Amino acid sequence: MARTRFVQGLDELRARLLRMGGLAEQAVDRACQAYLDRDLSRCQMVLEGEAQINLAEREIDELAFDLLAMQQPMAVDLRFILAVTKINSDLERVGDQAVNIAERVMDMVELPAVPLPVDIARMSAAVSAMVRRALESFIEGKAELAQAVLEMDNVVDRMRDEAFITLVKTMNERPDVTRQALDSLLVARNLERVADHATNIAEDVIFWVRGADVRHNVQPETPAQQEVTEGH
Amino acid sequence: MARTRFVQGLDELRARLLRMGGLAEQAVDRACQAYLDRDLSRCQMVLEGEAQINLAEREIDELAFDLLAMQQPMAVDLRFILAVTKINSDLERVGDQAVNIAERVMDMVELPAVPLPVDIARMSAAVSAMVRRALESFIEGKAELAQAVLEMDNVVDRMRDEAFITLVKTMNERPDVTRQALDSLLVARNLERVADHATNIAEDVIFWVRGADVRHNVQPETPAQQEVTEGH
Repeated sequence: MARTRFVQGLDELRARLLRMGGLAEQAVDRACQAYLDRDLSRCQMVLEGEAQINLAEREIDELAFDLLAMQQPMAVDLRFILAVTKINSDLERVGDQAVNIAERVMDMVELPAVPLPVDIARMSAAVSAMVRRALESFIEGKAELAQAVLEMDNVVDRMRDEAFITLVKTMNERPDVTRQALDSLLVARNLERVADHATNIAEDVIFWVRGADVRHNVQPETPAQQEVTEGH
Repeated sequence: MARTRFVQGLDELRARLLRMGGLAEQAVDRACQAYLDRDLSRCQMVLEGEAQINLAEREIDELAFDLLAMQQPMAVDLRFILAVTKINSDLERVGDQAVNIAERVMDMVELPAVPLPVDIARMSAAVSAMVRRALESFIEGKAELAQAVLEMDNVVDRMRDEAFITLVKTMNERPDVTRQALDSLLVARNLERVADHATNIAEDVIFWVRGADVRHNVQPETPAQQEVTEGH
């Protein structure tokens, strides 16, 4: 009986985390669309959505807390719950990045529109795909999918580096558009941070699925982990 | 007997988190000193220190996991352990910011030194104080100290905004030093992020302390906690 309630709680936790992921992804997409269309109303939606994301984060943490307090979880459930609390923090910070992007767009919209040598649309698509796949790997409990996300991170880093170089060049050649170029550069940097959060999420999924910590290139199954596994 | 081992484990967890906090704070201080002295050897120390911080993070997470798996923790211990895992992530990211700063310094050192209108020393001192006080509030379990950290965050945000405005002006007026100004601006932004992590830590301390107070007053906030309290 207690176990049934516990398992229902785990399902609820998973469902809420997915909703939270949907909100965070939507916020990033909206912020990037606002950048492309110079659309202040979308910026406003992103700013207003932040409170909702923050509330969702708190509720997930509380549910995780309640589940841990409810009964002694098995090692596999414990790993799952801890992974959820970590993924939860990352999703909330994805939401923060969306807000940062929206703020930069609000700055840009006040300045003359100029073409800039940076493909935010492409970068945004790559980053969104990373967040989505990281969440898919979580739903399906598939470490291979999570692994693919880790590899995509390098691509986004490269895009950011390229954006950095070309935009600094623009600033040098056209001081009159420095501020627009800087805003774009910071948007690219915010997107790179979203990619970093997707990477963290993928690592947490691998930790949960494999029971191994891949975060810092560590070999799986350390003595401490073995102990726990044997304990159950 | 099991309880004694568990309590020892909690002490160990606290001690390790403090050491981790010391490493993260040192990394930021070194990176900022490297900025001020254009000192590549300190940059190198920061880059090399990252592995140590990453290892410390993993060990803390594993210990937290083992403690949760060892016995059914009481609500107050559970809140403590969850707060530790969250603070742990933030400290690791403080270390990442130190690496980012060191990388910008390495870029700057290759360029001619120019005076820039940004007081990184002052910003660095403010940010270090935030990290230190956030950790103190954790050691002493004092929500008031944590509250003070939250207020300091606004001061750092203001410093960052000022840096942003004056450095963009510099870029406009002196295109020949755009890259140095941009590096400085990004260092200021990294420091602001460290302040954000200190803020997160302070919020986790408040979650832990206030949640504990609620429990001491025997005013359980959720049905699940009530169950736990009755269980012990």
